[in-house]
Order: sequence, then structure tokens, then C-alpha cells
Amino acid sequence: MTTSIDSEFTLIERYFNQQRLQRDDVNLAIGDDGALMTLPVGHQLVVSTDTMVLGTHFLASARPEWVGHKALSSNISDIVAMGAKPCWVTLALTLPSIDEEWVAGFCRGFFALAERHNIQLVGGDTTSGPLAITVTIHGSVPAGEAWLRRSAKVGDNLYISHPLGDSKAGLEYVLNPERLAIPMTSSAVPVSIDAQQVSEFQSLLLERHFCRYPPVELVDQLRGKIQCALDISDGLAADVGHVLKASKVGAEIDVDMLPLSTALIAHCYGDKIMAQQMALTSGEEYALCFTAPSDCDLSDLPVYRIGRVIEQPELRLVASGQPVTWQLEGYDHFGE
Amino acid sequence: MTTSIDSEFTLIERYFNQQRLQRDDVNLAIGDDGALMTLPVGHQLVVSTDTMVLGTHFLASARPEWVGHKALSSNISDIVAMGAKPCWVTLALTLPSIDEEWVAGFCRGFFALAERHNIQLVGGDTTSGPLAITVTIHGSVPAGEAWLRRSAKVGDNLYISHPLGDSKAGLEYVLNPERLAIPMTSSAVPVSIDAQQVSEFQSLLLERHFCRYPPVELVDQLRGKIQCALDISDGLAADVGHVLKASKVGAEIDVDMLPLSTALIAHCYGDKIMAQQMALTSGEEYALCFTAPSDCDLSDLPVYRIGRVIEQPELRLVASGQPVTWQLEGYDHFGE
Repeated sequence: MTTSIDSEFTLIERYFNQQRLQRDDVNLAIGDDGALMTLPVGHQLVVSTDTMVLGTHFLASARPEWVGHKALSSNISDIVAMGAKPCWVTLALTLPSIDEEWVAGFCRGFFALAERHNIQLVGGDTTSGPLAITVTIHGSVPAGEAWLRRSAKVGDNLYISHPLGDSKAGLEYVLNPERLAIPMTSSAVPVSIDAQQVSEFQSLLLERHFCRYPPVELVDQLRGKIQCALDISDGLAADVGHVLKASKVGAEIDVDMLPLSTALIAHCYGDKIMAQQMALTSGEEYALCFTAPSDCDLSDLPVYRIGRVIEQPELRLVASGQPVTWQLEGYDHFGE
Repeated sequence: MTTSIDSEFTLIERYFNQQRLQRDDVNLAIGDDGALMTLPVGHQLVVSTDTMVLGTHFLASARPEWVGHKALSSNISDIVAMGAKPCWVTLALTLPSIDEEWVAGFCRGFFALAERHNIQLVGGDTTSGPLAITVTIHGSVPAGEAWLRRSAKVGDNLYISHPLGDSKAGLEYVLNPERLAIPMTSSAVPVSIDAQQVSEFQSLLLERHFCRYPPVELVDQLRGKIQCALDISDGLAADVGHVLKASKVGAEIDVDMLPLSTALIAHCYGDKIMAQQMALTSGEEYALCFTAPSDCDLSDLPVYRIGRVIEQPELRLVASGQPVTWQLEGYDHFGE
């Protein structure tokens, strides 16, 4: 079915032109050939774009609210990783037909997250075709203060902003939804975990695969303290590799310092090593990973130190000071 | 087939990270979580986005060079219609598999047009899925000088930047390529047209459906002289309707003033009315349509006056001062 112009206009008017949020720096939003915005004086523009395709990035069974949330959160995460504040987005939505219920759900998820972070939808395109979503996000950063992958220094500490691994665990429930109906028994989980919570953990992990909240508040909290960051989208081990390559340094991660959620430990039946390996390889986490000078006190912030930057250009994993030699998918041994 | 990360990186490195053009205002392009740019002081940012989907916007038989050209030209056209200069683009490309020959052709078309107008690719995303392209373009305009749909004034003259209709004629060859092999006979075309040129005209029209060059040079030439413009993407009659609605005015178009290409007249077997109707409804023209005060002398510019802005909120078509009452597809009688 080809979307007629008329129904495209109706769709835009009914769902995409209804955002209550109006930023002062948006001079003209939807309704002309382009949107017009004013960037604050002394700031640089940051732009990033991400596509989600049905069958590649999500299944038809995915809740439209979660798809809408994830389409935006993956982009916000990129802006945060540059040390910038998200401001404006465009949304290119390709739909096989106009399924109003799906569009309404998608918009609920998308706009709830947009409102939370004061992000205005300023333009877009709706087209007919296989379901896919491309969001392009715009942020602003004081000139010269962006956090770059190439700025890690030997001696810096390495941090992450939230426990990793939950997204990958949730993906297992996406791919095998029947697992949700099989609560783990109390004998399979550590005694410290209430067995009645376990099925709630499963639902929580499923939701976390879709609905992460990038740590936008850290942009202000870390401004001026750090110079190097990136977001965890392909997995910690693989993504840290990008920093090491760009900065021509190495890193040592102490796997025992990796924060792990109670839900993930329950998911792994209490097997800490399994959980640590998931934390190292879990993609689509939209956590912030950054380095900070060793004399920088971040103890009052919700961040986790997991290792340090070293001179030898390789990624070393250690536990209790001893090397660990796990074979991890996505682990990039570029520095041999 | 899912694109592996490794081959995505290779693709980006080989084809998308090779643009020689480096703008001074791009502080960081491809290779981090986002691109970093500096907008000139006293300017506003203009953003627009367009998606092209295989099967909806082009067929598998389309030359990849032309698809690359069109993906960018449709976006440049939006920036020009805002009175802005195009600066930076992001490219989200969804591919069913990595067909290097197709990607190489696409990039030739895309980057040739980008170089022509000093536009730098600053970011993107390559994903696996049904073939689709979303380009988001960024331009800059001196603050307060953007051309808006809502700024038409009664008494203004109405202009277009190039003869319309060729794109629609070319589409007929896209949909019925066998027509290209049937040259029109000399008796079917006006005597003023060399019959030997006719098959060349057919190829030309086919190319014009894909390869229009938005009139970027008019941005400087019309700056300060006009306030209202839009691009012709859905057809002149339909698109002028957007201006009338936004400006709360009407317009009168003299169909005898519509410029028509020799190729289009040949395509229409010399039938001027058929050609005029095609000019009124041809989409994807990426021409500039604008209004200018009646005392504004534009005689030295390559633009065509086709009518005027009137008070009564309707679109009137006239020929030799008499009303014409053609039923046109895409013709929007909103002002009844």
C-alpha cells in the first residue's frame, strides 16, 4: 500500500505535530521546507544519526512504545557521549501501511523520552515501505569542550555510568519469549535473591533491552572534569577498543569491578563469571563510558570505576590482579 | 543477511570516509559518536530530512549513481527553498547486503553533487535491511532572512526557477522503459524539432527524473529581494497550495507563461496543453518556487514569472486572461 499524500498529512498533523514542548531556540518547526533553529553563542553543533529496521534491530512483536523509546534513546546516548546537551530531532519513519495503533504507541514512547530531556521534534519524513526509523539528533556543546574518543591519557581511570549486561540478557527473552513463562526456581538463584522476584527480573531485563535512559544529567556533572567518552552500543570490550585506537593507548579492566544488576545475576543463575562476560559484550546499553584523570574525585556521582588507561596498546582484562583470557565476541585485539 | 560490524566498518572506511572535501567549519566528522560543527555567527541552522525507499521512490533498475544524486538533491532543494546555503549532511543507508558495485555507484552520484555545492558528509549509519536511504541536511542562513511559506503578499509576482514537467515525463520512461526503444516519428512532433533529437530527448527526460540540480546559486542572487519560497516536490499546483494556505492568500497562474522544455513538448507530441498540465502536476522537480514584490526587477536572473498572488484564497489557472478548469491530480481546492 502506498501512503497517499493526504493520509501522510493527516498522520503528521495527528501524531507528529502535537508535541506540547516548544523550545525557545526553535524558530520554526514542522510545516515548511526545513526547520530553523538558533544555536547558543559560543557553542558547537553536535549531530548524530541512527537507523532501526524491523527484523534487524527489533521484531514485529516489540511494543511500539519501546521501539519509539529506543529510536530516540540510542541517539540521545550519542549526544551525551560527546558531552553535549540534546536539543532537536528529526524523525524519518517508513511504514508498510498506516497502522494508527502502532504509530500512536510509537509516539507515546518517543515523545515521553523527548519531553523528559527537553528535546523538540523539528522535522521529518513519513514514507511508505518496509518498517524502519531513522532519527537524527542535534545537540549543543560549549566550543572546545566536547568529549572525544581520541582524548584518553595514560594514567586516567576508566568509568561506566551504569551496570552493564542487562540489555543482552533482555535480548535473550526477546529471542525466546517463552522463557518469560518459565520462572527460575529458588534453587537456581543465589540465596540472597528473593525467588518471588525472579520473574519480575525477567520482565525487567526485557524492558531494559528496549528502555534504557541515557545519563543526560552526567553532561553537566562531568563538564570540565573529563575529556574522553563514548557510548556503549556494541559492547564494552569492543567500544573501549575504539577509544584505545583513537587515543593510541591501552586499557586494563578489572572484571571484578564491573557493576552487575541483581536481575542479571539472577538471570545467570548466580554465575558471576557468566554475568561479567555478558557485561563485557552486551550491546545497546546506551551507557556512558569515559576516562578521568586519576586525581579527579567522582565519588559523589553515580558512576563506576572499572579500570585504567595504560601505555601498552591493548585491552587487558584482569581479576584480582591476575590476567583473564576469556574469548569474547566483539572483543577487538587490534593492538597485538 | 545481517551486516557484520566488521564489514560495516570496512564499508564506511572504503566508501563513506573518503570525501576529499573538508570544510573549515567541520571540527570533527566521521569517527566519533557525533560530528562537531561551527555555525557562522549571526546565522540560524536549517535542517531537513528525506527518505527514499526501493519500490516506493525508485525501482531496482535505477542507476545507483542517479539514486545517490537524487537522495542528496531532494534535500539540497529543501535548504535552497529556505534561502539557506547547504553545508553538512548525514547519510543513513539501509542495505539488504553489501553490493559493492551498487554502493560505489551510489557514492559517485552522491559525492559528485556534494562536491559541486561544497557539502561535507559528517556522519551516518549503515544498517542491514530493505534498501532505503535517509539523508538529513544542514544549512545556514543569516538570522531572520529565511524564506518562509507564510510570507507571500497580495500583489507579489509568482516565479519558478526552471521549466517543469520533465520529471513526470521521465517517470513514464522509468515505468515503461520499452518506450525508450520506440523513437517518436517526425510526424508526431512539431516541425520545429529535429526528429533525430527525439530519442535523445527521451533519454534526457529519463535522466531529469533522477538528476535535477537544485538552483543553489539563486540563494545569493535572491537574498534580500524575496521572503517567500518553497520547492516543487509534489507538483506546482499542489505545492503552491501550501504557500497559499500558510500565507492566507490566493494565486493566479497563467498557464501560457509556464516555461516548457523542448524535450517535454516532443514527449507530448507537440500538444501544448498536455505539456502544461504535466508542468502543473510534475513532482520531484526540485525547482524553486517563490514570490517577489511586483517592483522587484529579476530580469537578469534565470527565473520565470508564471503568475501573481491575489487576495481571494484560491488557486486560479488562466490562459490568455480566461479561466481554465482542468481537473488536475494533486490540485488542492482548499479555499472554496
